[in-house]
Amino acid sequence: MAYIELPVVPELGREFPGIVGLMTFRPETAAPINELVNILLRGESTLTPGEREMIAAHVSWRNDCFFCQTIHGAVAAAQLGHDEKLVHTVKTDWASADISPKLKTLLNIAGRVQQGGKQITEEDVTAAREQGATDREIHDTVLIVAVFCMCNRYVDGLGTWAPQDPGIYRARAAEIVEHGYSAVTEAATAQIAR
Amino acid sequence: MAYIELPVVPELGREFPGIVGLMTFRPETAAPINELVNILLRGESTLTPGEREMIAAHVSWRNDCFFCQTIHGAVAAAQLGHDEKLVHTVKTDWASADISPKLKTLLNIAGRVQQGGKQITEEDVTAAREQGATDREIHDTVLIVAVFCMCNRYVDGLGTWAPQDPGIYRARAAEIVEHGYSAVTEAATAQIAR
Repeated sequence: MAYIELPVVPELGREFPGIVGLMTFRPETAAPINELVNILLRGESTLTPGEREMIAAHVSWRNDCFFCQTIHGAVAAAQLGHDEKLVHTVKTDWASADISPKLKTLLNIAGRVQQGGKQITEEDVTAAREQGATDREIHDTVLIVAVFCMCNRYVDGLGTWAPQDPGIYRARAAEIVEHGYSAVTEAATAQIAR
Repeated sequence: MAYIELPVVPELGREFPGIVGLMTFRPETAAPINELVNILLRGESTLTPGEREMIAAHVSWRNDCFFCQTIHGAVAAAQLGHDEKLVHTVKTDWASADISPKLKTLLNIAGRVQQGGKQITEEDVTAAREQGATDREIHDTVLIVAVFCMCNRYVDGLGTWAPQDPGIYRARAAEIVEHGYSAVTEAATAQIAR
């Protein structure tokens, strides 16, 4: 279904879904993308992994990317005591979600930058600072948004397919939480090569 | 002028402009971004470096990112016999530019994906194939667009400054053409640490 021919997984009889299929097509570019996502979503930070995954899921929802919003929503839920309801609210209506005032100001910034880099205002940044956001937190929020504006376009711009069953995303999320993005993609690429 | 406090370059009395200032703030994320850009714009490809830089410059122009469209326009020109007029036409009105029919179909795809991953159609891809575009060329075009939708949001979303003097961009472009993106950023980061 993708616009280009992607490697077929013997066990599936077709290509891997979403960004994974693309990454098995071009492992050279997959490596730095996964490294970047690992650092931003799983590396050392004063934002929790769950908070960062919620920003990624919200941006992917705004970009209407089903694969990315579902997998990052599932990873966020896995890191937040499996609270899928909370993640759904943050994706679709964060203002009414039971999250910290600081995270709300960062999600506000996320919505601006998703629209375009120039949509953010000094007031948006001041509001985040007033809730205690640091320079590093503001930087990482903007870069997470930017990275998902990349990933969402990559996934949908090449017409990849996405499973509908939430159980598939939950299972994959558990692997990502345990092993990280790079390792899970490398395992997928190895599965093709076998 | 940026929304966060970036490292000051002793020789400038202020931070580096554009993405460079951000990369000196967070070298961990700079490394994979530069690696990704190096592979896509300078790595092995059947598209010339000049063609790939023109795609990057066009997308950055569409996203109204002055720093990125100017530096990548300058790098493109440096790789195209210093033809700044051609690069300007490709940025602002590629349909009337003196470029190959294949590159025009790839720039059409670029404009769609810049708007959003779902804006591309089967017809856009078929048109590129009819001009001889390969799967790898279509893949790399979409990923270059996605990467610059990231970089443009990163640069403008954090309110970085950009010099107005075209000579500054020409000089930096010459360094990039010679040494690549990673090396030039690493040299900038070392200049801060001195």
